Amino acid sequence: MPDVMKSFRPYVTWANARGAWPDMVFSTRVRFARNLQGFPFPNKAEPRQLAEIRRLAISAARDSGLFQRGHFLKLETLDAAEKRFLVERHHVSHALASSVLPSGAAISNDEDLSVMVNEEDHLRIQCLNSGFAIEASLASALKLDEALGRALPFAYVPRFGFLTACPTNTGTGMRVSCLAHLPALSRLGRMPQVLENLSHLGVTARGIYGEGTMVLGDFYQISNATCLGRSEEDFCQNIDRVIRNLIRQEIASRETLLKGGLRIKTEDAVFRALGLLKHARTLSYEEFMQNISLVRMGAAMGFSTGLDFSTFNQLTLLMQPAHIRAAAGKDLGPAERDACRAELLRGRLA
Amino acid sequence: MPDVMKSFRPYVTWANARGAWPDMVFSTRVRFARNLQGFPFPNKAEPRQLAEIRRLAISAARDSGLFQRGHFLKLETLDAAEKRFLVERHHVSHALASSVLPSGAAISNDEDLSVMVNEEDHLRIQCLNSGFAIEASLASALKLDEALGRALPFAYVPRFGFLTACPTNTGTGMRVSCLAHLPALSRLGRMPQVLENLSHLGVTARGIYGEGTMVLGDFYQISNATCLGRSEEDFCQNIDRVIRNLIRQEIASRETLLKGGLRIKTEDAVFRALGLLKHARTLSYEEFMQNISLVRMGAAMGFSTGLDFSTFNQLTLLMQPAHIRAAAGKDLGPAERDACRAELLRGRLA
Repeated sequence: MPDVMKSFRPYVTWANARGAWPDMVFSTRVRFARNLQGFPFPNKAEPRQLAEIRRLAISAARDSGLFQRGHFLKLETLDAAEKRFLVERHHVSHALASSVLPSGAAISNDEDLSVMVNEEDHLRIQCLNSGFAIEASLASALKLDEALGRALPFAYVPRFGFLTACPTNTGTGMRVSCLAHLPALSRLGRMPQVLENLSHLGVTARGIYGEGTMVLGDFYQISNATCLGRSEEDFCQNIDRVIRNLIRQEIASRETLLKGGLRIKTEDAVFRALGLLKHARTLSYEEFMQNISLVRMGAAMGFSTGLDFSTFNQLTLLMQPAHIRAAAGKDLGPAERDACRAELLRGRLA
Repeated sequence: MPDVMKSFRPYVTWANARGAWPDMVFSTRVRFARNLQGFPFPNKAEPRQLAEIRRLAISAARDSGLFQRGHFLKLETLDAAEKRFLVERHHVSHALASSVLPSGAAISNDEDLSVMVNEEDHLRIQCLNSGFAIEASLASALKLDEALGRALPFAYVPRFGFLTACPTNTGTGMRVSCLAHLPALSRLGRMPQVLENLSHLGVTARGIYGEGTMVLGDFYQISNATCLGRSEEDFCQNIDRVIRNLIRQEIASRETLLKGGLRIKTEDAVFRALGLLKHARTLSYEEFMQNISLVRMGAAMGFSTGLDFSTFNQLTLLMQPAHIRAAAGKDLGPAERDACRAELLRGRLA
């Protein structure tokens, strides 16, 4: 098995279902886009410049004291399974994983902090927390940002703020996002209207792996659409309001699903999903997500599924393809992987 | 609850999965169509004549000594739920259950013998046995036929044999049928060819409740298409050959389903079906049958379902609508019935 997978712990702290509204918000993320003065943006830089940027960034991360016993990775040296694993772990984007140029990542030991190097920007600084935790995530991300900013000359002009490769990130360079679980809104067919409303609030909804990825298991990554013209706190307060509003709508939808003739249908769907997860002998990740989504909602509704939110969250990570490969300890074809997933899952749910 | 339902035992002897090939043949039935000299066939008889025929037939059944502690019923006095219950128990046809004229049934205590009175013919004498049991069923049915024939003047002419309302029954008046479970042939899409072949062998395939009823759970009632020109033993031998041939084909199909890449798909389908039955909160009889069919096949293939064939067979009877109503002890709407079925089933499978 590749070394990178072995070096990560099986239990992911930021998926422990602590924090506020763990039944509706899987995790909260704050990230800052930062670039170094004196270097072209990554898409214009020479490989030797990219290597130098990485050296500076990784060195600053090490020296910050926030990455003790952490991971410092040169991504172009990893194999596809290792990079896929880091994507599934939400530390690295699809874009960075596919780069063949010098790029890197620093990831803290408990995986709440990370820095992507030479993705769209020189640095993407991010903090992940369990549950609905915007304030704590902002504070941690700012702390890391300040520590790195003491060592690195970030490109900043007073008129715009932080400079970035894409103008949509210029200004604060900040994106705050919550991974919201909205199964009842989905089930009642209300998501198209919800998404339409969000687009008028300066807010973007994306799939579970970020931009351009599909929605799995009714999880939506909700984040600010722009970074310019307001303070970090303002953007955070806006997302905070939006998420609280989504939570209210999701609660109302869950109440609807428990009323009158819908109740038995809801309960039936929840337990059939549980039965499928406990009994399937082959299972794709998509089907796993569809069904765990219902079971997760059922547990939040008080149905006795015998499972807790920490289990749901850990499974959501552990059932991903590269995680299955890591658990198996060898390469698997798609059919073998689906069989292995079903077997591992039965063991977890037994 | 209506009295008739209470008077039947919950456990049905002829569904105990004893006898030969219990995993492929649910039950075997032999029935004789008989009519009394001096009376018009039921469709031409006056109500007072039908009442007299019933009096004679029930009296002969009582006197035969084969119906001790049995059931002697005037069907037109029963309510719809009671009649539906008797249909589900395979003692009474849909046609007889819908009659408003004097009609009846005698059913032995352990339900292996019964006589329908004033269905298409004056008497339909039948014997039911568990599993593949043509010889034993014929012997029991002949014994009852002889006992009733001593008391009643059956319409018989040497040239044709026993006279019946419909010419397709004239001659022996006998139909021998096996309720065969053919899930692997169905799953492999081979049933259309099988049914086509059967039609050339003087054999009819019907749904679980007989003529004009739909196929549920891959159960096919296989019986002789004609009654004339050959002896009872000849017809029985023909059906015996046909069923043995179907069993060979079903075994070969089950072996195919366990080969190569099909194995995991088969196992997956079996256990997903089991998961559904164990977890559903609302369940129609059709969906129950689709899924128990797969679990039944899986058990025969050696998958550890934790269930035996007696359980499968009993459930196949007990999950029927009027049986659910009987278990609930009160009238149920369709939605309540499906919820009650799921609940009773979970109790049985827990």
